[in-house]
This record gives sequence, structure tokens and C-alpha cells, in this order.
Amino acid sequence: MPGRYLEDYRVGQTFSSRRLRVEPDAIRAFASQFDPQAFHLDDTLATASIFGGLVASGWHTAAITMRLLVDSDLKPAGGIIGLGFEEFRWPRPVRPGDELYIESEVLDIQQSRSRPEQGRIKVRTTTFNQRGKPVQVQVGTLLVPRKGAANA
Amino acid sequence: MPGRYLEDYRVGQTFSSRRLRVEPDAIRAFASQFDPQAFHLDDTLATASIFGGLVASGWHTAAITMRLLVDSDLKPAGGIIGLGFEEFRWPRPVRPGDELYIESEVLDIQQSRSRPEQGRIKVRTTTFNQRGKPVQVQVGTLLVPRKGAANA
Repeated sequence: MPGRYLEDYRVGQTFSSRRLRVEPDAIRAFASQFDPQAFHLDDTLATASIFGGLVASGWHTAAITMRLLVDSDLKPAGGIIGLGFEEFRWPRPVRPGDELYIESEVLDIQQSRSRPEQGRIKVRTTTFNQRGKPVQVQVGTLLVPRKGAANA
Repeated sequence: MPGRYLEDYRVGQTFSSRRLRVEPDAIRAFASQFDPQAFHLDDTLATASIFGGLVASGWHTAAITMRLLVDSDLKPAGGIIGLGFEEFRWPRPVRPGDELYIESEVLDIQQSRSRPEQGRIKVRTTTFNQRGKPVQVQVGTLLVPRKGAANA
């Protein structure tokens, strides 16, 4: 599977994913390594927190989103290489048992002026829970190779 | 340790962290779960990639940054609760053996108009490698409780 080149993307093109269920043990395992805060680790303390119960680290949600994106049909040739985001937010937390899926849309496509072998696409990826409510919204830029360059 | 309330932060206040070394096995372990792409998993394939060698997933860098932030003296009362970012980018990749540390600066402090018990602080956190080069820059907003509300 060679993947998509810059010329293969269109503004308005969309990609979606399978669902991935977030287990409570996975929430605690991620948090114990990267985000050891009470509302990600301990049910009782989490109930007394602002969240009213155990929630996933936002970075866990971001990592799961990446996994769903890698497994989706977005598939740029050369891999998903993110440069950064102009928008990135968590409108609501992810809770144990939530089933997440993503929808991505290509917002913009730019050839590089200085490097003819590559370009950039701007992609909005929204991560939804099983009730169709967004838990993460990111608008980011990916580096994508041009087809001409690959054949040069 | 009660943590800091909105009134305890000042614009220009800075916080830094210890160093955390990124081992090659940790790069592969994170990537195999959340970002299974060749340049995060396989030394030989990574050498042939745009990166010229194994690199950490950007989301691994983000997760490590969160761990360093949790362990730092930023410590908002009620925990580090991020709402989103107005800037988020990876200027360069993290490579095996890199030692990361962060520097955070408070950029803005806002009381909530609608919820007198809380406010928001805007924080820039830059993640550096052992050569002092930034590998991640994020400017985000955190929810922070007000002291008055805690005593009410």
C-alpha cells in the first residue's frame, strides 16, 4: 500500500475510523505513567473532583486519536508526520467504557515553495464518544510528499 | 500540599522541571500502542525515512511533557486541568537517549465572569532536549480554582 501523495488529497475529503473502547484499566495505566493525577487514577478521589468520576488523561485521548488516525484511510505516503496544530481542545472528558471514533476532513492543501518534493495538508480531526459528542477537536498540519518527486 | 489558587499565580512566573531520558524501548512501546509507524518502531526503516533514524511519536513527547508538568511546581489546586491550546507544535523530533526538560511561563490570568469560584491561566510550556533545543512548544489554558471560593 503506497499511501497517498499531495495530489491525491482534495479539500473537503473526509476519513473516518473504527470505534475503540476505553477501558478503566487503560485509563489508569496511561495516567500512572504520564499523568498521575487523582481524577485519572482513583475512583473515590475522582468522584470528589470537578469531574465527578474517573476520566482519561487528555493526552490519552490524544494518543488514542492518533492510533485511530494511523488505522484510518488517511494514509499519507511516507507516514503521518504532524508539524503542529492551530486548534486543539478537549470539549469534554473521556470516561471509562466510552467508545471513541474519529472523523477527519481535509481543510487546505499547499505545495511547498521551497521544497518541490513536498507539501502540506491542513486536517481537522474530531474525536467523538459513543453518544456522538466531541471529546477532542484538533486542526493540524501534516507534511505530505508530492507524487512528481517520488517518480523523479 | 494544597496547591496554588488563581490568586497565587503571577504573569511572568516560571516553572521548570527535572530531566527525563527517553529510552529507545520506551519510544517503541509507546508507538506500538498509539502510533505504529515505521519511523517510531524499526531502526532500519527509520533510517530510510525522512527522519534518518528512530524518533519518538510526537504524542509520546506530549505525554512526557505532561509528566514533567505534573511533577513540576506549577501545581494548581484541584490538579492540572487543560482546556485546550492556541499554539501547539513540534519544531524537531525527539531521538533515543534525548533528555527532556520543560520550562513553563504564566502568560495571562483571567477570573471567570460566570463562575466566581474559578479562573483560567494561560501557560506556555516549552520542552527542550539536552542541547537546549525546543522539541515541543504549547500555549494552553488551564482551569484553576479561586482561593475565595475554596474558603466559602
